[in-house]
Amino acid sequence: MLSKSQINSIKSLQHKKFRHEQGFFLVEGSKSIVEFANSPYEIDTVYYTTTFDSKVLNLSQKINWCEISVNDLEKISSLKTPQEVIAKIRIPQWPLPGKKELEGKFSLVLDGVQDPGNLGTIIRIADWFGIGHIICSPDTVDSYNPKVVQASMGSLSRVRICDTELPAFLAALKLPVFGALLDGANIYDTDFGHEGLIILGNEGNGIRSEVEALVSRAVTIPRIGRAESLNVGIATALFCSEITRNTKK
Amino acid sequence: MLSKSQINSIKSLQHKKFRHEQGFFLVEGSKSIVEFANSPYEIDTVYYTTTFDSKVLNLSQKINWCEISVNDLEKISSLKTPQEVIAKIRIPQWPLPGKKELEGKFSLVLDGVQDPGNLGTIIRIADWFGIGHIICSPDTVDSYNPKVVQASMGSLSRVRICDTELPAFLAALKLPVFGALLDGANIYDTDFGHEGLIILGNEGNGIRSEVEALVSRAVTIPRIGRAESLNVGIATALFCSEITRNTKK
Repeated sequence: MLSKSQINSIKSLQHKKFRHEQGFFLVEGSKSIVEFANSPYEIDTVYYTTTFDSKVLNLSQKINWCEISVNDLEKISSLKTPQEVIAKIRIPQWPLPGKKELEGKFSLVLDGVQDPGNLGTIIRIADWFGIGHIICSPDTVDSYNPKVVQASMGSLSRVRICDTELPAFLAALKLPVFGALLDGANIYDTDFGHEGLIILGNEGNGIRSEVEALVSRAVTIPRIGRAESLNVGIATALFCSEITRNTKK
Repeated sequence: MLSKSQINSIKSLQHKKFRHEQGFFLVEGSKSIVEFANSPYEIDTVYYTTTFDSKVLNLSQKINWCEISVNDLEKISSLKTPQEVIAKIRIPQWPLPGKKELEGKFSLVLDGVQDPGNLGTIIRIADWFGIGHIICSPDTVDSYNPKVVQASMGSLSRVRICDTELPAFLAALKLPVFGALLDGANIYDTDFGHEGLIILGNEGNGIRSEVEALVSRAVTIPRIGRAESLNVGIATALFCSEITRNTKK
């Protein structure tokens, strides 16, 4: 049984301010929790209901186990139909990757992506294509937002995400910077080389001009038909796919 | 002012059964409605609130205009925050495309896609890449479902979607059939030629065996990293992109 103040404290982790004050976020469902357990993330507490078989998790970490009622589960869950188990996990403090970590490979840079579903999808795509780092502008949606965690389907446990002011970060790195922009070179004619950063911008406004100023190659996905735009998750997937085909050669 | 029975009749269009009984579906928001007005679709009635400037629509079709209260708008809308205008549009009866309509180009085939957001995204992707036809198995989510209409962002007005039993349809066509499958040829090594059908399967179960039996080329998007799966909308985009780069040569 959880006290009212415990419930409020856990529920508050649905909000960015309280996540960063407490240093924790929530992951729901055993499948995702197992993926976090098999990662450098540190699981603090697992809240589960009687019907849940804790052996499913098979966690070797030292963890607080806390059996709760279905009623309390519903209170602390951010889902309409909560799963039987929720984990409180420590937010890691990844150091901002430097040139050493980023050279010889590709990483994603997000400039103001707002929709949590889009960020979750982008994390899942990065994980599929073996991209290990995503660097976000400070106004990008928080990667520990419950909807981001949900949409990333466990991939958040494998992709390192950092926030930083992009112009200074990009200027210091001196790696090729590809920007998804409207009037760039055709993506199908672009030689991505063997390393670099791919910048994707905000859903409505694209890449900010201060960030665009640091793009070394503007790249465009050509439109054949008439849809007004492509979703930023889809655009990310197309860039990752082109890089994969490119580095394969 | 709408009567209770009018409200019920309009609201019932949120359900497939009543859409197909009445032969109408709903489109919300002036941007999407304009796209349907500039298409072969026939707009029956436009419901709008006083604050709405009907000139925005600039519709040349003969249409019933019906001013309603904000309260009634909220009742007939499927959105949490309804826009000022909703159109009732006739469901067209596109004839199933035959070999003549489909040869020399690429079309999509969906076998049991269930999530309305995914179908809407797929329609938008098809429209971006200039794909004109999507053929769906009868158990694929209805393309006039409000969430599909919403997610397609007007692209539904330009892409023709038909339902049919896929095995008989595919067998009769005698066009190349590419299937998104797990153990196929690497998509980056696949020569798609200049025409064919691309089959994408259900979110959990993939392509049914009866349909898979008619696939002439199994194609796989290689996984470089560790995500368990790619969303069906993302997979569709990657296939459309490869076809575009392929036919460009």
